[in-house]
Amino acid sequence: MADFAKLRVGLAQINPTVGALRDNANKILDYYKQAVAEGCDVVAFPELSITGYPPEDLVLKDGFVAENQGILAEIVKSIGETFAVIGFVDRATSSLEIYNAAAICQNGKVVGVYRKHLLPNYNVFDEQRYFTPGVHNPLFTIKGACVGVTICEDIWEANGPVSTQASLGAVLNLNINGSPFHAGKIGARREMLSSRARDGECVIAYVNQVGGQDELVFDGGSMILAADGTVVASAAQFVEELLVCDVVLPKSKSVAAPQQSRGQVAEPLSEDAQIFAALVLGTRDYVQKNGFKDVVIGLSGGIDSALVAAVATQALGSEHVHGVAMPSRYSSSGSISDAELLARNLGIDIQTIPIEPAFAAYLKSLEPSFVGRSADLTEENLQSRVRGTTLMALSNKFGWMVLTTGNKSEIAVGYFTMYGDSVGGYAVIKDLFKLKVYEICNFFNQQNGRDIIPQSTISKAPSAELRPDQRDDQSLPPYDVLDPILELYVERDKTAHEIIELGYDATVVKRIARLVDLNEYKRRQGAPGVRISTKAFGKDRRLPITNRYSG
Amino acid sequence: MADFAKLRVGLAQINPTVGALRDNANKILDYYKQAVAEGCDVVAFPELSITGYPPEDLVLKDGFVAENQGILAEIVKSIGETFAVIGFVDRATSSLEIYNAAAICQNGKVVGVYRKHLLPNYNVFDEQRYFTPGVHNPLFTIKGACVGVTICEDIWEANGPVSTQASLGAVLNLNINGSPFHAGKIGARREMLSSRARDGECVIAYVNQVGGQDELVFDGGSMILAADGTVVASAAQFVEELLVCDVVLPKSKSVAAPQQSRGQVAEPLSEDAQIFAALVLGTRDYVQKNGFKDVVIGLSGGIDSALVAAVATQALGSEHVHGVAMPSRYSSSGSISDAELLARNLGIDIQTIPIEPAFAAYLKSLEPSFVGRSADLTEENLQSRVRGTTLMALSNKFGWMVLTTGNKSEIAVGYFTMYGDSVGGYAVIKDLFKLKVYEICNFFNQQNGRDIIPQSTISKAPSAELRPDQRDDQSLPPYDVLDPILELYVERDKTAHEIIELGYDATVVKRIARLVDLNEYKRRQGAPGVRISTKAFGKDRRLPITNRYSG
Repeated sequence: MADFAKLRVGLAQINPTVGALRDNANKILDYYKQAVAEGCDVVAFPELSITGYPPEDLVLKDGFVAENQGILAEIVKSIGETFAVIGFVDRATSSLEIYNAAAICQNGKVVGVYRKHLLPNYNVFDEQRYFTPGVHNPLFTIKGACVGVTICEDIWEANGPVSTQASLGAVLNLNINGSPFHAGKIGARREMLSSRARDGECVIAYVNQVGGQDELVFDGGSMILAADGTVVASAAQFVEELLVCDVVLPKSKSVAAPQQSRGQVAEPLSEDAQIFAALVLGTRDYVQKNGFKDVVIGLSGGIDSALVAAVATQALGSEHVHGVAMPSRYSSSGSISDAELLARNLGIDIQTIPIEPAFAAYLKSLEPSFVGRSADLTEENLQSRVRGTTLMALSNKFGWMVLTTGNKSEIAVGYFTMYGDSVGGYAVIKDLFKLKVYEICNFFNQQNGRDIIPQSTISKAPSAELRPDQRDDQSLPPYDVLDPILELYVERDKTAHEIIELGYDATVVKRIARLVDLNEYKRRQGAPGVRISTKAFGKDRRLPITNRYSG
Repeated sequence: MADFAKLRVGLAQINPTVGALRDNANKILDYYKQAVAEGCDVVAFPELSITGYPPEDLVLKDGFVAENQGILAEIVKSIGETFAVIGFVDRATSSLEIYNAAAICQNGKVVGVYRKHLLPNYNVFDEQRYFTPGVHNPLFTIKGACVGVTICEDIWEANGPVSTQASLGAVLNLNINGSPFHAGKIGARREMLSSRARDGECVIAYVNQVGGQDELVFDGGSMILAADGTVVASAAQFVEELLVCDVVLPKSKSVAAPQQSRGQVAEPLSEDAQIFAALVLGTRDYVQKNGFKDVVIGLSGGIDSALVAAVATQALGSEHVHGVAMPSRYSSSGSISDAELLARNLGIDIQTIPIEPAFAAYLKSLEPSFVGRSADLTEENLQSRVRGTTLMALSNKFGWMVLTTGNKSEIAVGYFTMYGDSVGGYAVIKDLFKLKVYEICNFFNQQNGRDIIPQSTISKAPSAELRPDQRDDQSLPPYDVLDPILELYVERDKTAHEIIELGYDATVVKRIARLVDLNEYKRRQGAPGVRISTKAFGKDRRLPITNRYSG
């Protein structure tokens, strides 16, 4: 075995909190100790693990960057023989330029720093707003093996830094990430890592952050791939974990890569399970990292609020979720009984607060102003706003965060009331089209082996119940028509013209496109929520409000 | 004069609308005809004048980019002997890369294209999200003179493309801009342009867009500077204009620059006048470009709503501004009379809708839920939300946009009610600290030669009037203490620690910093409003909501 080095690699898939520098440092040290106890030769932490990812404009504060450097210096004092690779913000001593960097530490010292080369500046990412790209490829020797370090985006490019480092002799690449979840990503990620391992004939150790940060959920899913591209160890998604794996590495690039011993490989989750887990983790972390324990949800008896309540219960525990039924003069008796059945099934409390008295009071106060005008959308919105105000009053009085229940289809076309059903701190399912809401509800019931979300809730025709016998499909096309067009228009950046050319009905497409554009101002005042797609309403999609394009 | 070329240069300081490709094209052609009629040899239009600036994620739609190219091709057919320089999105034929570009057109043809080199990706700018940087420096001959073209940011760098083009022989640089206003910018801009002219020994013709686009106001202020750095012609700020100036240019760099004939030079505006004009233009364009004619404003009798009403009246005309007084059980009689006096002075209508009935109805409906709890902020917020809901009902019924009246000091520390006084489509003064609100109110009265905004409104102690004898300074430090700390913390990116080191009271600074951080979630759901500072709440400042940094 003289030609080979046997390395025990630890990947610390931790959940840091943005800005909590000291808490993050403590977490890093806890996991470092655990890695030492498990005999690791090296342990890698996620991208910018000291600051949490993404720190956004916090890094524009010189004082913040200095503090993150000070915290790194403190951590390093506790680093012994086991190497640690720690993500931090580096600052050049001679300039104001900052770098997204990894410190390679051993025996109380930073033995080297790698600065990220490729800075993503698309979708939700703004890294060119902050960082200067690195240009160097330092390599490190660990137990005689040549090791490279890269950061996130660096590994996505075929002829990027990972290939360069491999060509310079690296037989292992430690790639540290803050790589947010979207549906379908883990497969693409695994394939990409596999190609990169094969291309460079090197072992890839990929560690990713876990946890929710505003819109983003980081899914972990850290993994180690042999030089032949096979996954030899992987961590679970959506939970903190220290993944440990022994890898056997040639001490020289000219020696063929040996057969690796396999480590623990996590059972893969179905896509629906991943989406549900992302909703749960995103919600839990948003609520708890912002200092809340309890949430309140308006339960309409419909499917959207049912799913949000199910997610919240799984995220926070049933004793921390509070349901409110707010019947109007137009509510069906089924709405109330469905809401009550759901609450019973989930084990959450429910109270009923009728909206009629406040609604009637508004109508009376507005009577002189509205004289001669007939009822219209105004009165529907009023009822929705009484509900919103009622939820906010409970939030203020009891310190509960309001979870809002709009889905992506509604939010896209503006089929909601600003300051009404859209009120709240977090919009749990804002990135799920309505058809996906049904799918995830069915998944949830199946997984639990019973109809926690009542079948009557799933099977009834969607309605806002703001006027007699109202149904969504009186205002909108059926969701199986609406959702595919929205996906093309919103997520795939097609113009209305292009969608019509694909064979969709011109009148419907033009109407939907116009609704999406007109309602940008409403979305802009909406709460954040879990990003599930590759283009969520939020940092992913930055369209002007004032926008007369109609193509 | 054989060594010299005499060029008549037109700068078309137009107000395009983002996405209105055909309207923008028509406007470009109108101004082109006017320039031809005035005998111009060349006329330059602003940056991305076909799409309007900034088009944001619209340029991620391939169909949008193709349409903008088609529109350019159509415009070019009407271009005759007078050169036109037109901003558009260029796409490489062989790739998906797009460029922020200028087409130089004559006699029905695009004779050349310049692609912007320097792409701003800071503050409100995200150009690296979209565009590939250009690398070439094409030069053009107009009446025997060597002319360079650059775009916006290109001219801000001392050794950038303008210098390169000058060294290659350009004696005139046509610099086309979408350069947003902030207080103090025009002076900095003039100085920079003057340096650039002197450095390159070339004439600079700077043309800037005018108009409001969501948060941004473009102030125009186009100007021509001689090679010695003096301003020889300038357009007014905040209005559309075709600036025409004859410039005499050496046909070779080796000939000394001659004395230019002076053109029209606009009277400079005071900084307060610029700020007021920016508020007016930003509000007018937001309202009208989004298809509204009328606005509604809650008039409290306080200074914030008074200034917003004054701005709206100037922007839209008094017949399009509707005031609403919404007294509570805690309103002073002075509040109502001040609001009425203001409305009379501005010539706008005012109606009174008491909030007591709806407030009382909520309290009654919530009584069972609130049993055993004493009154707190909940009841104050409830009143504010009744006001917000009332304004939205009027908005829905009459199609009036609600203008919201919060100032930057309040918004910074979260001293407002979400879904209450913050409701509305546009937050006119959101980027003015409270002390600046006073200053602009006094400016407005002085400019009009009478107290249109009543002195009693200006001199009374600020109060939300949501509980008996409430005053802002019971909850917040006085504004002359608060505002300077906020400026350091919010606009200058200082940490609390650094501000304390500057000599400010530690307890106050820590409390304010914490309030600013804690209220990020409230601001995120706020309406857009005119950017006046170099760091407005909006695209300028991208801090995480989930953020435990307390440095």
